Amino acid sequence: MALNDNIPVINWEVHLSDRMKRVKSSAIREILKITSRPDIISFAGGLPASEFFPIEAIKKACDKVLTEQGPAALQYSTTEGHPPLRTFLAESMHKYGVPAVANNVLVTCGSQQALDLVGKVFLNVDDVVIVSRPTYLGALQAWNAYGTMYETVSLDEHGMVVDEIEDIYHRVLKTTGKPPRFVYVLPNFHNPAGTTLSLERRQKLAEIARKLELIIVEDDPYGQLRYEGESLPPICCFAPERVLYLGTFSKTLTPGLRLGWIVAPEAVIARFVQLKQGTDLHTGSLVQLIAYEIAQSPLFKEHISMLRREYGIRRNTMLEALTRYWPEGCSWTKPMGGLFLWALVPDKINTNDFLMKAVEQKVAFVAGSHFYPDGGGYNTMRLNFSYCRPEIIDEGINRLGMALKKELGA
Amino acid sequence: MALNDNIPVINWEVHLSDRMKRVKSSAIREILKITSRPDIISFAGGLPASEFFPIEAIKKACDKVLTEQGPAALQYSTTEGHPPLRTFLAESMHKYGVPAVANNVLVTCGSQQALDLVGKVFLNVDDVVIVSRPTYLGALQAWNAYGTMYETVSLDEHGMVVDEIEDIYHRVLKTTGKPPRFVYVLPNFHNPAGTTLSLERRQKLAEIARKLELIIVEDDPYGQLRYEGESLPPICCFAPERVLYLGTFSKTLTPGLRLGWIVAPEAVIARFVQLKQGTDLHTGSLVQLIAYEIAQSPLFKEHISMLRREYGIRRNTMLEALTRYWPEGCSWTKPMGGLFLWALVPDKINTNDFLMKAVEQKVAFVAGSHFYPDGGGYNTMRLNFSYCRPEIIDEGINRLGMALKKELGA
Repeated sequence: MALNDNIPVINWEVHLSDRMKRVKSSAIREILKITSRPDIISFAGGLPASEFFPIEAIKKACDKVLTEQGPAALQYSTTEGHPPLRTFLAESMHKYGVPAVANNVLVTCGSQQALDLVGKVFLNVDDVVIVSRPTYLGALQAWNAYGTMYETVSLDEHGMVVDEIEDIYHRVLKTTGKPPRFVYVLPNFHNPAGTTLSLERRQKLAEIARKLELIIVEDDPYGQLRYEGESLPPICCFAPERVLYLGTFSKTLTPGLRLGWIVAPEAVIARFVQLKQGTDLHTGSLVQLIAYEIAQSPLFKEHISMLRREYGIRRNTMLEALTRYWPEGCSWTKPMGGLFLWALVPDKINTNDFLMKAVEQKVAFVAGSHFYPDGGGYNTMRLNFSYCRPEIIDEGINRLGMALKKELGA
Repeated sequence: MALNDNIPVINWEVHLSDRMKRVKSSAIREILKITSRPDIISFAGGLPASEFFPIEAIKKACDKVLTEQGPAALQYSTTEGHPPLRTFLAESMHKYGVPAVANNVLVTCGSQQALDLVGKVFLNVDDVVIVSRPTYLGALQAWNAYGTMYETVSLDEHGMVVDEIEDIYHRVLKTTGKPPRFVYVLPNFHNPAGTTLSLERRQKLAEIARKLELIIVEDDPYGQLRYEGESLPPICCFAPERVLYLGTFSKTLTPGLRLGWIVAPEAVIARFVQLKQGTDLHTGSLVQLIAYEIAQSPLFKEHISMLRREYGIRRNTMLEALTRYWPEGCSWTKPMGGLFLWALVPDKINTNDFLMKAVEQKVAFVAGSHFYPDGGGYNTMRLNFSYCRPEIIDEGINRLGMALKKELGA
């Protein structure tokens, strides 16, 4: 058959749901298109370092599961997730005193799907979610599709200022007649801010949630990537009955498998499962079996230790380079883990405009204002330190420093 | 830390979105739990036969992509899908005269995710979708979460009676003030009915859609599994500007990879991409690379030929067994492909009640009424013929026949 070269063009916009008016492409995604040129040193993405992926271990695991469990690895599977993987993930909470079992776990297609399912299960149009200022852009993107409104809480070097929540709760209840739907919190090595919520605030947040009967969504993609200090217990260990704890293999194993999970009370996991059935039936069988094979081997702990060591070096390199190359009047967070640090530049620089000048100097970042759901942060930027090798980090921070000095007339 | 054995129980229902009131577990899923006992012959599921999975080819493909493209197979990837796979899928439409290019394709996590994204992109609460009576349950499940209403069109041996659409359109427009959002059609080897939409009706449907400015969602999971007769062109080749064509690797390669796709005009693919970003970022990188590796090899065509041959034998076995074992007053469709046939039993049998009696005889099916969004079909059932081996099919149909005779007092 000859190709049809005479196709009319129709206006699809008139056919779209109202929801689509609220959906925009991620600003970061658009930035990444510009900054993916090979001559640009990019601190913009949130990618783990490809050179550390355990390719051989994945290859072996894949061969093993296909040899020993081929049909199960390739057939339709349960919506809840691969049972041994669910048990493994549940037991990984026991070190915090959380007595999770397999029925408390739903395996998702990355934690982005967990965020989307949280929106689908909990959010009506115009519902209010409490987030920190700044907060993770991917969560806003997931929830914007549900018509969500945001109230923001300040963030300082100890994380979200949880004392502000109670006032917001009462104000929202008074003005809308409904309480906020939940509080979204990134306790460890916050994206984008790099801060860690203090133990005291974790306990306080759990207390406030109990008092106000609030749900907490605890997003913990980076918890295992700590480069200094002691691990802190997750918030879910202080109020397990009302926390949805989100984990992921994207930063510890690899993102391309698309594997995350939710740990929560069984009653709400059952509701998530009902919704996930119609959403995508289940998370891939093969990738779940591969992840289980690796996660329960001693090799995985060694792999994470290696990542901690190497990413710790990159973080230190970035901190040292910032001190060495950047002008007076700039400051930055000193994250104890994770992938990002957060920099503040003098007020007269708007980092959205400055980005274009940085790109001319062949270096890129994400302007901080994208992480503010209600505006602000125009003199901030997010810098990723996991993806580039140390010598590249040093060079990139130098280039940024020069561009800043030029901008400041220094 | 000791496990916390003193967790309060909260009522999650008060926290859920209004959407959750409309979401129920799939009836089929509940049935599958009962019928998965190993002593039961089940025609209930919609599973491809595990013994035909190309395990060795997948093992080789996995090894190859990890060896040659390890970092790319495991890193974050684009929301649209793996570019060579998109091009391959676009070109697979050329045989129908549809001049698709990579930008017309979005790779999804199975075609269930495509159905969900269709709902998310197009459906407001109370919007009307036109479906056949019966129709695919998974589509209803995906769209129920968006508060969808259904209008149904009859189905006969030539598929959906498309002539009924125009009246429905005008009635919906008059009573709700809005046109129906789209028509959902399974052109080939319909799930659950096994029927195929005739060429004449395909052309007619495209004509009606153009006249009424309607969108068509063309769901084609089984198109390549034809056991007799000539392939018919998809509806999208008659109105490519207003059709969303849904394909999947679940029935030809394996379901556990969770890979499907949408072919549609670029303007609407761009909108799907925006929404998928916040939904799950992207479909798994590794599984896309594996599928591309296999799909473009000559082996894949041979594999599909083998499936056609083997599934054709199973279909024939079921048809012969039905003729041999079933009592007077029953009838069934003779599908030219796919995984299912549809049986009608005498009116006095309600297949929902009869299922319990069948299970006592250690055989199971899905009662047809589940596939009717507005009631009906109480004397119908869906029988899957792809999963069981021929001798098991013969035995299972025999058992069902005995149970039917007993029920009818014959």
